[in-house]
Amino acid sequence: MTDDVQAPTLTPSGPGHLAADDVGIVAAQDFRHSGPFAFRSGQTIEGFTLRYETYGAMNATRDNAILICHALSGDHHCAGWHSPSDRKPGWWNNLIGPGKAVDTRRFFVVCANVLGGCQGSTGPSSIEPATGRPYGIRFPFVTIPDMVYAQKLLLDRLGVAELHAVMGGSMGGMTALMFAMEYPQFTRRQVIMASTANESAQAIAFNEVGRQAIMQDPAWNNGEYPRDGGPRVGLAIARMMAHITYLSDAGMDRKFGRRKRESAGGEAYTFDAQFEVESYLRHQGESFINRFDANSYLYITRAIDQFDPARAAGSLEQAFAPVQAESLVVGFASDWLFPPEQNRAIALALLRAGKRASYAELATDLGHDSFLLESEELYALVRGFLERDGAHSFDFAI
Amino acid sequence: MTDDVQAPTLTPSGPGHLAADDVGIVAAQDFRHSGPFAFRSGQTIEGFTLRYETYGAMNATRDNAILICHALSGDHHCAGWHSPSDRKPGWWNNLIGPGKAVDTRRFFVVCANVLGGCQGSTGPSSIEPATGRPYGIRFPFVTIPDMVYAQKLLLDRLGVAELHAVMGGSMGGMTALMFAMEYPQFTRRQVIMASTANESAQAIAFNEVGRQAIMQDPAWNNGEYPRDGGPRVGLAIARMMAHITYLSDAGMDRKFGRRKRESAGGEAYTFDAQFEVESYLRHQGESFINRFDANSYLYITRAIDQFDPARAAGSLEQAFAPVQAESLVVGFASDWLFPPEQNRAIALALLRAGKRASYAELATDLGHDSFLLESEELYALVRGFLERDGAHSFDFAI
Repeated sequence: MTDDVQAPTLTPSGPGHLAADDVGIVAAQDFRHSGPFAFRSGQTIEGFTLRYETYGAMNATRDNAILICHALSGDHHCAGWHSPSDRKPGWWNNLIGPGKAVDTRRFFVVCANVLGGCQGSTGPSSIEPATGRPYGIRFPFVTIPDMVYAQKLLLDRLGVAELHAVMGGSMGGMTALMFAMEYPQFTRRQVIMASTANESAQAIAFNEVGRQAIMQDPAWNNGEYPRDGGPRVGLAIARMMAHITYLSDAGMDRKFGRRKRESAGGEAYTFDAQFEVESYLRHQGESFINRFDANSYLYITRAIDQFDPARAAGSLEQAFAPVQAESLVVGFASDWLFPPEQNRAIALALLRAGKRASYAELATDLGHDSFLLESEELYALVRGFLERDGAHSFDFAI
Repeated sequence: MTDDVQAPTLTPSGPGHLAADDVGIVAAQDFRHSGPFAFRSGQTIEGFTLRYETYGAMNATRDNAILICHALSGDHHCAGWHSPSDRKPGWWNNLIGPGKAVDTRRFFVVCANVLGGCQGSTGPSSIEPATGRPYGIRFPFVTIPDMVYAQKLLLDRLGVAELHAVMGGSMGGMTALMFAMEYPQFTRRQVIMASTANESAQAIAFNEVGRQAIMQDPAWNNGEYPRDGGPRVGLAIARMMAHITYLSDAGMDRKFGRRKRESAGGEAYTFDAQFEVESYLRHQGESFINRFDANSYLYITRAIDQFDPARAAGSLEQAFAPVQAESLVVGFASDWLFPPEQNRAIALALLRAGKRASYAELATDLGHDSFLLESEELYALVRGFLERDGAHSFDFAI
């Protein structure tokens, strides 16, 4: 997820950005689970923290919750503002708020930073109780099911009786899919955007190059580095490369083309950034290293690469057999990282498994990041799916 | 160019790999130009060397030469074998030889390592006469026109009166295009494959990430490093990433899919290579750093990014105005680095400029590297174009 692409499309209005349909000033909270937590790998940790935010109010029957699942570099702050001076709101602020597609007057919205993350939830940069030092790569290997299990414990603590919906884009879509498979009685709807039921070799390859850039940076030091140090060069390179995969060729041509930086002069012969796209990418790398932990990047990309529910079940159709949720799957024409056909395949497998599922494909030129798009068409799809009466018959559109 | 993709498609036969239609054992030669050589940047060097190979014989009228232009990581060794024990022949051995599409019984084939390269031609790793040390980034900035000018000096020295054809893929296509623009009286035919008249923002972006990986590696040391040292980590990362852009999503799925390495076990929780595509890429990075100079990588990618003949001329059509060569442009359906439409655009601009030009598009799943493909369809196109009587009328097929 490239939040710096999202930012320019948002138009905060009113004093302190507090538009009437914004959730307003919000604050993160910490859910602390004590006692051992067992990962799928067999490894355990003694308790964990999930940092999360909620918007809207739980209803009396405790069944109006919507769980938002973030992507690789996202976090729990998906709507509203932490302070009136914030430069940007939460990453899905255009979708979530009073009167918006995910209507916080009606739904109780929950979003947590994933286990293994670095924005307040327990991950490799957290202090290991036994040693008093950051876990580093002694942190257990995290999988999408581990992330899901931790978030279910949070929802139980909050008293959520069942999820009205779980939704997310990219890795968030994998998390949502896993929720519907693991907790079928608990999950009534799922919205999957720009996601995949398992990555292609090309997507694994890009993640691997990013991991190698980090792990071969001498400052990585086998995962042991100070909080303000570490493999900053490797992490920036990983981010720059990944950022290209979040955009589309056409979108980049529209946004940058071959425009040169004004300071670069006409035919400057130098290795400084000459094209605008070069300085843009350098900025993306620089800003990322100030907010993200390199070890978390390793763990979370590994979790994404390993996600493959069909593998254990024999087929995607069999993996989806327990699902009771109704599903809306949205692909984006210009997404070449998790392309439309991989999203369509999710909906088709759900249909073959006898589930209610729809697939919609939107034409955009924003590439993989299109799920963050300002789009009335997308909002209408999501609103219609979240607000319709679940008992009614359902049109299949593939 | 990813020669390790090419290799498995080649089937050397006979003792010492010397098949009847191979050019056999070949040896490189050095062309030394003395006296100052002026680059487009205004910088000069005192003489240079181009390492080159030739196959076949020049005819009495000295007009049967075909100049082969290599891609970013290619070199002068495009056909035959340096010794019977070689593991692989020259990179275009499938196309060039007695009786092959580029028939060395008929044509005098010349191929030189570009100026700025690192396989024997003068470049940043060469010794600067004034200091006795490698040039490093004191080497002048190289452009495609500089490469072309140096090769023209070689052809003059060889006594070539005019080129029967100039041909190349990827950057080699840019070089060929520039030859036909710079030396219109000299260049009778050009074959352009998997190339572009200027790179998209996405292609520039990938090159920039590669350059940053090299330049931010502390061992780069502003371009001053020992011959067996230098930014090996950065160069390997650059190569791994670039390698992904040379293949296609479908081709990688066919070749690797999500297959795990046997040693990785079923659900191993480790950052070691688990998927076959991971160990393949690591190998690509490792083998590249043993044969390529990091500074050359910076210079040549910069030359590729800067290539934009339409920019100075006002339009591609105007840039092509002086061209007298007949042109065959070949795009490959699965090439997403220099996609088919960018190749088609070259042929269309030539046609608009009143030139003889044809465009052909081949369906492959090998991505950008498809120009190295073993394909009877490609061979027939090239052979037909090179061997037809130039005075006859010409069918336009766009």
